[in-house]
Amino acid sequence: MITAVSVDEQIEAADAAFALSQNVTPRVRASWLEAIAAAFEAHADELVALAQTETHLGETRLRGELRRTVFQLRLYLAEILAGENLDATIDHADPAWGMGPRPDIRRVNVPLGVVGVFGASNFPFAFSVLGGDTASALAAGCAVVHKVHDGHLELGRRSGEIAREALRSVGAPENLLATVTGREAAEALVDHPRTRAVGFTGSTTGGRALLDRIARRERPIPFYGELGSINPVFATERAWAVRGDEILAAYTGSFTMGMGQFCTKPGLLFAPTNRDEVARVMGGHVAQVPRTPLLNARLRAGFDVVLAAMTATDGVEVVIQGDDADAPTPTVLMTTAAVIRANPAILEQEMFGPATLVIRYEPGEDLAELATLLDGQLTASVQAETEENIAQLLSVLQDTSGRVLWNEWPTGVTVSYAQHHGGPYPATTAERSTSVGPGAIARFMRPVAYQGFPPTHLHPALRDENPWNISRRIDGRWQPHGQDAGSGS
Amino acid sequence: MITAVSVDEQIEAADAAFALSQNVTPRVRASWLEAIAAAFEAHADELVALAQTETHLGETRLRGELRRTVFQLRLYLAEILAGENLDATIDHADPAWGMGPRPDIRRVNVPLGVVGVFGASNFPFAFSVLGGDTASALAAGCAVVHKVHDGHLELGRRSGEIAREALRSVGAPENLLATVTGREAAEALVDHPRTRAVGFTGSTTGGRALLDRIARRERPIPFYGELGSINPVFATERAWAVRGDEILAAYTGSFTMGMGQFCTKPGLLFAPTNRDEVARVMGGHVAQVPRTPLLNARLRAGFDVVLAAMTATDGVEVVIQGDDADAPTPTVLMTTAAVIRANPAILEQEMFGPATLVIRYEPGEDLAELATLLDGQLTASVQAETEENIAQLLSVLQDTSGRVLWNEWPTGVTVSYAQHHGGPYPATTAERSTSVGPGAIARFMRPVAYQGFPPTHLHPALRDENPWNISRRIDGRWQPHGQDAGSGS
Repeated sequence: MITAVSVDEQIEAADAAFALSQNVTPRVRASWLEAIAAAFEAHADELVALAQTETHLGETRLRGELRRTVFQLRLYLAEILAGENLDATIDHADPAWGMGPRPDIRRVNVPLGVVGVFGASNFPFAFSVLGGDTASALAAGCAVVHKVHDGHLELGRRSGEIAREALRSVGAPENLLATVTGREAAEALVDHPRTRAVGFTGSTTGGRALLDRIARRERPIPFYGELGSINPVFATERAWAVRGDEILAAYTGSFTMGMGQFCTKPGLLFAPTNRDEVARVMGGHVAQVPRTPLLNARLRAGFDVVLAAMTATDGVEVVIQGDDADAPTPTVLMTTAAVIRANPAILEQEMFGPATLVIRYEPGEDLAELATLLDGQLTASVQAETEENIAQLLSVLQDTSGRVLWNEWPTGVTVSYAQHHGGPYPATTAERSTSVGPGAIARFMRPVAYQGFPPTHLHPALRDENPWNISRRIDGRWQPHGQDAGSGS
Repeated sequence: MITAVSVDEQIEAADAAFALSQNVTPRVRASWLEAIAAAFEAHADELVALAQTETHLGETRLRGELRRTVFQLRLYLAEILAGENLDATIDHADPAWGMGPRPDIRRVNVPLGVVGVFGASNFPFAFSVLGGDTASALAAGCAVVHKVHDGHLELGRRSGEIAREALRSVGAPENLLATVTGREAAEALVDHPRTRAVGFTGSTTGGRALLDRIARRERPIPFYGELGSINPVFATERAWAVRGDEILAAYTGSFTMGMGQFCTKPGLLFAPTNRDEVARVMGGHVAQVPRTPLLNARLRAGFDVVLAAMTATDGVEVVIQGDDADAPTPTVLMTTAAVIRANPAILEQEMFGPATLVIRYEPGEDLAELATLLDGQLTASVQAETEENIAQLLSVLQDTSGRVLWNEWPTGVTVSYAQHHGGPYPATTAERSTSVGPGAIARFMRPVAYQGFPPTHLHPALRDENPWNISRRIDGRWQPHGQDAGSGS
């Protein structure tokens, strides 16, 4: 059992490691991330086997997730080599500047310090010890103290050990990454004055409790919490007429993927359908869904409670009844737009498992108006024909969610430059930030401007000669990585 | 008297204006900002005269501040024409993407909605109705409801009127900007569900109260508060030996500028000096400082209280005693590093007026260690010789503050690309954001990703043909404004 005292010691050790490593070049820092990535690849068999003992996830899924985790580390290390996270900006002195003479002023992002990260239950690799929050915080130059999820304690411990050993092997301070466990440690972590930011992936209840706790700190810190999302899908009448069956089939594939335990699982389908159609088409598809037990017993118990509550809700009927086996078959519930209008709280129930709600709307109903009933979401999707004008619906969905999809499915979140994995509350607590993609790195940095500095004392990113060969904005004009003119005014 | 009910109506009207204007091009939005800038120039005589009746600021200072305000609007409109605020990012579909096939995914920043802005007492133009927060929020595409500072109600009302008339004259929704007054309106503004962000410039007490109130909202929103900053200056022994007198003279100019009522006024000078030297050199300079009454009676009363408390502090002595005239002469207090170490709370007293504290340190004392006693700051400055190695001091100052200056003075904040006007708490509540410079615009935007969209339905910033001719990142490579290849994969 780790006590609050020893967590404090770990945070202070992380802070010391952060201080030690502040002045390394991007190249050296990238080599540290590469060492961790390579170590995870080398230990893949061991880690996947361990994950299988602590979760009910299958080997194929876990190997894919580990691959994603390693890919992410390497994408982020490429990003810091290009200096994209630094937002380096140089304004040379300008006596003719419009508001009066401008001094020489230069700005660069510097890392925040120690970041507390809370791992998720449902992604033992990609949102855990070496997941997106840790990868982006380390790439930023921060140290990470990671609170391991209770659902895979041994995997978390071992992941931390492997990463620390990898850091040691390349001469990096191993305390740049530490793992802690238990509620007491979690609270000490968010309260500690040296903790400068917190990343979290979990439930709305847990996330809100952390948000409120962080708000009581003397010194405010950013809290990047990913909470709950139901990920609605809107099928237009026209799309339904053309390919209703196909949409139901693909929707079934998406909502049952990973037994419905993804944060981007579509939980709501708005469609001009009827009970018979849903029973007939989805019935055939759900029977073919590969079944596994849910992640763990606690998660299963939570799923059963929410599903029972939804099933008992006035106006909600069961179209396909899942069994209650260890590895349950999917459940499909149905209601109408009229019921939703009278009781929009139905739209806020996240069923974290193989269940979904189909909302039948009548011909001519206004989908944009229905969409205004939704809370904040990570994703919102439309199934529509290209020639349709659905601008108003799209406008509402853009207000509501962080990613809008057209004839695609929200599960399977690619890690790439344009990704935005975030969204209005309660999807996240910081809708301006993404937790997936290289854009996540800047969350753990802050700008510092330097005015009137002698060139020899400047941050290397800000020297006229551009020793790191990174992208920079100079006197208002961007000079991308590799295209820098290299000389000042 | 505006009641909470009518504030709600104004917020809803602002939200409607926001919705109406969401799809305008950057060119049109820039023309709206230009209309406001031109209207302020056209009404300069009237506005400056009005500001003089409500504050004790002089005409020259006020004309300069209005010029800065207009310049800022024009700099921001140029920024949105280049699309820098949009962070437009395009990832074309890529079947060979390292973690598995990548869909077509594109991301752009969209405006948040209604922004509540709280104006400052000490800048009736540059941090008031058309100040930095409003200018950046309007440039972002948001609507602004501005809570006018009680210190210049009539100027605030008239500024809002002129801006709304300018918006109307170019066909923009005038409700993009509204002004409200009074405490009740302020509270309604931060509580309203349609308020999506708040900007504030004011005291630490007032800012903390707002921060705590915002934390109680059901839906969290970003709070960009600029609170208190003492802006320390460290003079090294070597610099002191070379030009101690010169430093004292320039320091006096900076701390008394605008009667010491700037947020970046230097309030602390660490120097290897003594009482006689300070009395002799600063004595001569303070006598020549132009005197005016402080901004208003309330601010003067607050200054008198803090100054009396500082003067009464054990170990603090008065070297130059200011008078208590309507337009008071400057006061210079002095203490030692030893006293500060025993009672670091002395460093947290912001004296908002013509007073400062000199901290005498002994030869060989560690300035970096002294600097660790400081709270978060907007700025920190060093006076040092170029050949000195003061890396450790600079490292602490960078941790502590948002802008570090070398042989320059913190007052006079230029509006330019590299500016960072922000800093760790309590300097600001959001150390990752600047309230001055074009970087301020993105504070009021959030990213949205679009996956699988037909080109005809895409946000214009994300179409392959780049109709707005803006800077974009395409498949990982930046293509700056005006250098776009213009075609997709």
